[in-house]
Amino acid sequence: TAASAVASRSNFLFVCLFLFPLAYDTWCGVAHGCTKKIGLKICGFLQRNNSLEDKSRLVSAFKERQSSRNLLACENSEKEGRFQKTETDFSNLYARDLLPAKNGEEQTVQFLLEVVDILLTYVKKTFDRSTKVLDFHHPHQLLEGMEGFNLELSDNPESLEQILVDCRDTLKYGVRTGHPRFFNQLSTGLDIIGLAGEWLTSTANTNMFTYEIAPVFVLMEQITLRKMREIIGWSNKDGDGIFSPGGAISNMYSIMAARYKYFPEVKTKGMSAVPKLVLFTSEHSHYSIKKAGAALGFGTENCESQLKKMNFTIELLLCFSLQGYIPLYVTATAGTTVYGAFDPIPEIADICDKYNLWLHVDAAWGGGLLMSRRHRHKLNGIERANSVTWNPHKMMGVLLQCSAILLREKGILQGCNQMCAGYLFQQDKQYDITYDTGDKAIQCGRHVDIFKFWLMWKAKGTVGFESQINKCLELSEYLYNKIKNRQEFEMVFEGEPEHTNVCFWYIPPSLRGMPDSEERREKLHRVAPKIKALMMETGTTMVGYQPQGEKVNFFRMVISNPAASKSDIDFLIEEIERLGQDL
Amino acid sequence: TAASAVASRSNFLFVCLFLFPLAYDTWCGVAHGCTKKIGLKICGFLQRNNSLEDKSRLVSAFKERQSSRNLLACENSEKEGRFQKTETDFSNLYARDLLPAKNGEEQTVQFLLEVVDILLTYVKKTFDRSTKVLDFHHPHQLLEGMEGFNLELSDNPESLEQILVDCRDTLKYGVRTGHPRFFNQLSTGLDIIGLAGEWLTSTANTNMFTYEIAPVFVLMEQITLRKMREIIGWSNKDGDGIFSPGGAISNMYSIMAARYKYFPEVKTKGMSAVPKLVLFTSEHSHYSIKKAGAALGFGTENCESQLKKMNFTIELLLCFSLQGYIPLYVTATAGTTVYGAFDPIPEIADICDKYNLWLHVDAAWGGGLLMSRRHRHKLNGIERANSVTWNPHKMMGVLLQCSAILLREKGILQGCNQMCAGYLFQQDKQYDITYDTGDKAIQCGRHVDIFKFWLMWKAKGTVGFESQINKCLELSEYLYNKIKNRQEFEMVFEGEPEHTNVCFWYIPPSLRGMPDSEERREKLHRVAPKIKALMMETGTTMVGYQPQGEKVNFFRMVISNPAASKSDIDFLIEEIERLGQDL
Repeated sequence: TAASAVASRSNFLFVCLFLFPLAYDTWCGVAHGCTKKIGLKICGFLQRNNSLEDKSRLVSAFKERQSSRNLLACENSEKEGRFQKTETDFSNLYARDLLPAKNGEEQTVQFLLEVVDILLTYVKKTFDRSTKVLDFHHPHQLLEGMEGFNLELSDNPESLEQILVDCRDTLKYGVRTGHPRFFNQLSTGLDIIGLAGEWLTSTANTNMFTYEIAPVFVLMEQITLRKMREIIGWSNKDGDGIFSPGGAISNMYSIMAARYKYFPEVKTKGMSAVPKLVLFTSEHSHYSIKKAGAALGFGTENCESQLKKMNFTIELLLCFSLQGYIPLYVTATAGTTVYGAFDPIPEIADICDKYNLWLHVDAAWGGGLLMSRRHRHKLNGIERANSVTWNPHKMMGVLLQCSAILLREKGILQGCNQMCAGYLFQQDKQYDITYDTGDKAIQCGRHVDIFKFWLMWKAKGTVGFESQINKCLELSEYLYNKIKNRQEFEMVFEGEPEHTNVCFWYIPPSLRGMPDSEERREKLHRVAPKIKALMMETGTTMVGYQPQGEKVNFFRMVISNPAASKSDIDFLIEEIERLGQDL
Repeated sequence: TAASAVASRSNFLFVCLFLFPLAYDTWCGVAHGCTKKIGLKICGFLQRNNSLEDKSRLVSAFKERQSSRNLLACENSEKEGRFQKTETDFSNLYARDLLPAKNGEEQTVQFLLEVVDILLTYVKKTFDRSTKVLDFHHPHQLLEGMEGFNLELSDNPESLEQILVDCRDTLKYGVRTGHPRFFNQLSTGLDIIGLAGEWLTSTANTNMFTYEIAPVFVLMEQITLRKMREIIGWSNKDGDGIFSPGGAISNMYSIMAARYKYFPEVKTKGMSAVPKLVLFTSEHSHYSIKKAGAALGFGTENCESQLKKMNFTIELLLCFSLQGYIPLYVTATAGTTVYGAFDPIPEIADICDKYNLWLHVDAAWGGGLLMSRRHRHKLNGIERANSVTWNPHKMMGVLLQCSAILLREKGILQGCNQMCAGYLFQQDKQYDITYDTGDKAIQCGRHVDIFKFWLMWKAKGTVGFESQINKCLELSEYLYNKIKNRQEFEMVFEGEPEHTNVCFWYIPPSLRGMPDSEERREKLHRVAPKIKALMMETGTTMVGYQPQGEKVNFFRMVISNPAASKSDIDFLIEEIERLGQDL
């Protein structure tokens, strides 16, 4: 399967890959407590065994805590149990009647409980296959005010009753991204633990820049980043990382880190103080690399486009060097956006090692597979990267946003970005200020993205993520096997998909059997957009489409929603056939 | 007061400012419906009158909608009313028992209601002055596991009971940033409407990049940005803007926009293709300008540092030009981080006009004052800026994160950042694709930051924000008047504060009357950190401190929390005296 997937690869990839996949037995051995060095290294995500002594200490501490917790829980439930919804007339209540208003407590509780009712109704419907994925309206329709849903802002306040109506309407005219038949993006699903985590995060309403005001969240971030680095397989204990507002920014960090490592003077003197630097990336890499290249002052011409249609070889590097360019950075993609293809990291790493280039692995989409003993071999060699982008908000089903940039070496992020703002990062605080991580970021204030992820990990365990991910990959295999030999469908790339991306054309009856021609291509190009428009208008399902290179518009199915089942895959295929039969 | 505040200004500012403040009467006139051109232009935030015809149409539509709403509300409340908490044993329930699990509905509802109980308890305590602001622990203490609060992640799942305990503990060891006595940052408070908005946002769990999956939020963003541009006073209707992950990124956008406007070739060819560009900023500007200068390839030496101790004059510009540098961009700060000072925008704008420089106004902190007819004169001239950073999550009390970058000219953001990713921004969609705003961003996925803000605006109206902001400024005036002449305190800058920043030293008894000397300065430098440490350990209040230039550590009080009252100001002062009396 590995070799047959080559056709789906980006252009600069080598053919020879996955030479040493680990047998499944090896993994099982590790899972059952094997502490062989190789096991530990590869399976960083399996918690190391504690010594017996440690264990008994932990158990007694646990028991103690459980009993004290139970007491506490009783106390709390007594206190907390009193939040009961009562009939409240919100038509004469306004924001100003809520806390901090005097005697605003009861109204506040009733208002928030009413909001929660709206949200719980929405959550239930999200998982209900008899509801629509969306109720589509054009921008001008929504702007004109659907059934009085007025989006305009005004000088004077609206009543809380109206605010509740606004909340219902906002959800009504939105898209249910957690619906089992929503396949439109790499981020789908609505994880209930993650949702609870986000509700808590917004209630805590704090900022990640200092330990001072986010002590628990800062520690959770450190612990989670360390765990992720272990799973990547970096053997050193003191790597680095940070959660950023999405994979594009994470990728931007990787380029900044590479530049700072090799040319720290850019920080003070700018890009004009150094030779022309080149970033290497595969043609199918995510567009954010190019975006970052433009923003950071490299210029897009010094990023991807020079590599199109060429192979990434030593000769190519030398060619650039001779022209006065300095090759700086290579990004391999672990799970491309459209095809879900994995670049052969070991071969790329060999060249990077030899020529002292920074190796970044963009595993925004594929990183989740590291949690699966069955699939992580697709990212073999990732432990040789200098930096890794990994978005838990994609394959791991964490709520938006949750993206990590991870670095093998400590200190680079700090060196690259720190400006030592005296009003935030005072050096004479009473606590260990190495926990003030804000100066590593290109942001100042930073949203708390960690808690939902940490809570999900607690609630599912590593094994929970693993089975969730395996299930999604099984579903895509099911889809692939279902359509690969049917005359109604044509696959976009040869071989089995490596990730959950299944790319295909639907061939309407009018085009079946027609030989390849410009006319057929033009007609086929219009099929996917038409079906997609009909899908959205009927609201039954959503799936993405796009052209790629010379390939006309095709559907890209992706499965990252644990709520999806075989019946949903069946539904999608039938729906495409139904909507497309007359095209 | 304007002239007396000069001492608090950054170094490159002119002395002559606020020559033409608008009389308060003018504002009142406008408020009462005056549609004189100047009124409209300056008070863009007041909704324009609709014609009578429009009005009657609106009223009847409103009535119709109210009656249909009531019906709908009944339907909904019937459905929604059934979410009642019941006794549930969570000790044998796990994440896998929640939706999408078969029959997971009831457990899901009960679990989320239990979480809401925890959150409502927290909300109530947040506003309760008899509770602490925080329960401080050192990193190593939390890492060791406070009362069994185990931050480590494991392979196996925890029960939902344990997850609920984890939620309680997370809040317990955190910081109540909405507490009326939390003054530590520019973002404080816990707005209940905003909180409801965030809960809904996370439940909707979608992404801002396309209209396709965030139709309502995309329109809300457009409408809110337009409203903000009107309030700034830009007369053209088609400016631009985007919500970004914080003020630092908004400031970064402004530099990128300026560079693209004057040197679009940087996008493709990089910074080495253009002459050395210089960014001008005041010494007290936010450190994010420098951070962005480093990231974008300008180099920090070409940002701020060359301007320290110099005046921003035409001579200076010429001096740079003669050395082969090209002055590109000037940022004026409207509300500096520490002093809350406002740069004289009109004078800076004159020079920018004359020499064709991009003028950015960083009003991340001061932007909120635009909502106040009493205080917006402090930002006079802002309508001459090319771009403005304005963070509603600061002075307007919106929950984190909510920051806008606003541009006078349309198309620059798009031109600067677009990469036309085919898988997201298909050109053959069925709807008007100008509503797909994602390619304007440096991000790909983008968090929904708009809804809470839009909902707050709906619930408070423009006038609600105005009174909230006026109240905060009145409180800071109260604080200033209370301590300015007391021997226990010394003010850091002369004159009345322009924003809510009140900067002062507490002089402990041992230092009172001691003449200025190196010894006294050293001792005084240690006072604020010591008091702050004691504050945090007792958990009674929090306020920031820092040194600035040659000034030793001083307290910076800021008030942005609508829950704060005079009694809290009194408390803060007494607490500082109590904690500092023996120093």
